[in-house]
Amino acid sequence: MKFELKSQDPKSKARAGKITTDHGVIETPIFMPVGTVGTVKGVHQTELKTEINPDIILGNTYHLYLRPTIKILEQAGGLHKFMNWDRNILTDSGGYQVYSLSGRRKINEEGVKFKSHIDGSMHFFTPENVMEIQRSIGADIIMAFDECTPYPCDYNYAKRSMHMTHRWLKRCINHLDKTPLKYDYNQTFFPIVQGSTYEDLRIKSALETINIDFEGYAVGGLAVGEGHDEMIKVLEYTLPILPDEKVRYLMGVGRPENIIESVSKGIDIFDCVIPTREGRHGHAYCNSGTLNLRNKIYENDNSPLDEESNFSISKRFSKGYIHHLIKSKEPLGGMIISWHNLNYYKKLMEDIRLSIIEGSFDEFKENFYLRRSSDSKI
Amino acid sequence: MKFELKSQDPKSKARAGKITTDHGVIETPIFMPVGTVGTVKGVHQTELKTEINPDIILGNTYHLYLRPTIKILEQAGGLHKFMNWDRNILTDSGGYQVYSLSGRRKINEEGVKFKSHIDGSMHFFTPENVMEIQRSIGADIIMAFDECTPYPCDYNYAKRSMHMTHRWLKRCINHLDKTPLKYDYNQTFFPIVQGSTYEDLRIKSALETINIDFEGYAVGGLAVGEGHDEMIKVLEYTLPILPDEKVRYLMGVGRPENIIESVSKGIDIFDCVIPTREGRHGHAYCNSGTLNLRNKIYENDNSPLDEESNFSISKRFSKGYIHHLIKSKEPLGGMIISWHNLNYYKKLMEDIRLSIIEGSFDEFKENFYLRRSSDSKI
Repeated sequence: MKFELKSQDPKSKARAGKITTDHGVIETPIFMPVGTVGTVKGVHQTELKTEINPDIILGNTYHLYLRPTIKILEQAGGLHKFMNWDRNILTDSGGYQVYSLSGRRKINEEGVKFKSHIDGSMHFFTPENVMEIQRSIGADIIMAFDECTPYPCDYNYAKRSMHMTHRWLKRCINHLDKTPLKYDYNQTFFPIVQGSTYEDLRIKSALETINIDFEGYAVGGLAVGEGHDEMIKVLEYTLPILPDEKVRYLMGVGRPENIIESVSKGIDIFDCVIPTREGRHGHAYCNSGTLNLRNKIYENDNSPLDEESNFSISKRFSKGYIHHLIKSKEPLGGMIISWHNLNYYKKLMEDIRLSIIEGSFDEFKENFYLRRSSDSKI
Repeated sequence: MKFELKSQDPKSKARAGKITTDHGVIETPIFMPVGTVGTVKGVHQTELKTEINPDIILGNTYHLYLRPTIKILEQAGGLHKFMNWDRNILTDSGGYQVYSLSGRRKINEEGVKFKSHIDGSMHFFTPENVMEIQRSIGADIIMAFDECTPYPCDYNYAKRSMHMTHRWLKRCINHLDKTPLKYDYNQTFFPIVQGSTYEDLRIKSALETINIDFEGYAVGGLAVGEGHDEMIKVLEYTLPILPDEKVRYLMGVGRPENIIESVSKGIDIFDCVIPTREGRHGHAYCNSGTLNLRNKIYENDNSPLDEESNFSISKRFSKGYIHHLIKSKEPLGGMIISWHNLNYYKKLMEDIRLSIIEGSFDEFKENFYLRRSSDSKI
């Protein structure tokens, strides 16, 4: 993997870059649609490729490990072949999912013992076996196994957890070195900075993490309830420590405004279930703001979903029709809005990137907030 | 609407024809995908139009009346505009859905009082208001309001019900004459032959129904549990009474073998939820037979869904991947198989039609059954 910085915004820390891997180019800043168990929920791979066209998508180690299982993925030749996706994939390490299994998991120095949410069977993740699992899944970018702390988090717990995440990082790296690639392309490993919302811990974690040279570093343990302002504050004191010439990935974020502000602090990569999960629930991200298509005001609205959009899916159907589909629990409702939302996010990232390259990121931001607040329906 | 008979099979009653309406040509025999509430479940309209390409789809009066409601459909300019579908639509009359609401409806001479399956609200369908409703939905072909009898059905009940259906037919026709078109294209009305599985009643009903000249006649009250052989027997004694030069529609049928045998008795139009409903449950109709993709034997099967198919969706994903999607309850599983099944049905009807035109329908039938029985997985 190679990362080149292309442009730096003069008035913020925002930057545009280009990652090159064996599965092609990733132009940053980028948003990765989430393909939890080997499918971006409710979206055909053809639409994904030809209409939404993301340079990279995310797969979840925890989910893929349980289903279809690693054995099946290996026999299919890895996740790319299994799901018929020939562009980039990043897999998380399962740390966040295991954190979400509150009451169904036990963490100790060795690793995490957890109960499957599917059948209650017991499993054990360690830094070592998660590296093997990610070799077998075969994503282009793979993540360190970390502990994601909750919010709020007691200082002493956050400190102990951070140190364990650092020890786990070393175990990940050692084991990865001994685990050969499974397929005929390379994989890049990103470590994860933790430390909850404590400045000294975040700084310590960032310094410790950059001790070893990698092509990219992730900021984990955010978007867990701390709120937008707290999250941005963490980025403000954490990101300056990470080397400029390396990729920075903010895990599990977020809403458009979270993304814009995080970009302005220097983040390059994002992922989030919002466009698809909220799409299934009837929430459409539009230039004018977020529309809740379940709302009865759209029942008789024959105007297209997003008149200002350049994407055909956003102009093909009326708000009234989509309202009807969502209310009738018809799969097509979620399919349309998920596709629309992913386009919205794609376009958002392209606009951000272009404005950084053209030196007009501050204008872009200003216009973004102006457009939003001027809409009367929100 | 105009119907032209193109070819007649010399060895059976099978025929190929062409219907022309204001929304284009319908080549018969044809299978109509079912779009219950204004969407063919789990299939994008773009795929439907460009990949599956049915000349006509079916909408359900009962469902559309309850959701989005007739008022909304009128204000959208009819169902075609509401769902953005510019080809043909046929609506049933609600008779079958009302029949399915066993215990939630009361039938008398005036009409049917029924309880909505959505919110328990009470509604009343009469031959008259169902005609008005179908004018407002605006399908190209609209159906008489009839009583669909259950199976088995007591002879006296079947007889009384048939006579009521005939009286309702007259009321439908009278009221339709007084109800102007709502949109700028024509609608064609089909009456429905009833009479359960009693030869004398079916013959009486067919004779009574053809007393008035229409472009097409439907056979209703079948596919309600009587089984394949009984259904074909009914067609054998009913269809010879219907005029050759008119369209014949067998409502709610069916599996490929039901369709092939019904075509050989002279049916031109079919509709059924099987391709989409069974698709969502993991059943794929393939040239070699029906595969149950939930079956564990496919877990590790990297071969495409249907190698023999000419459709890209059928070759794009492995059986193992689709098995995983279905087991994981991912929407994409049902989306892929529904699309595949609709293609299978489309191709089936094209092959049937071509073989009739080429005078080789009997060979087509023979090959169809041979291909099926030679597959070891069924």
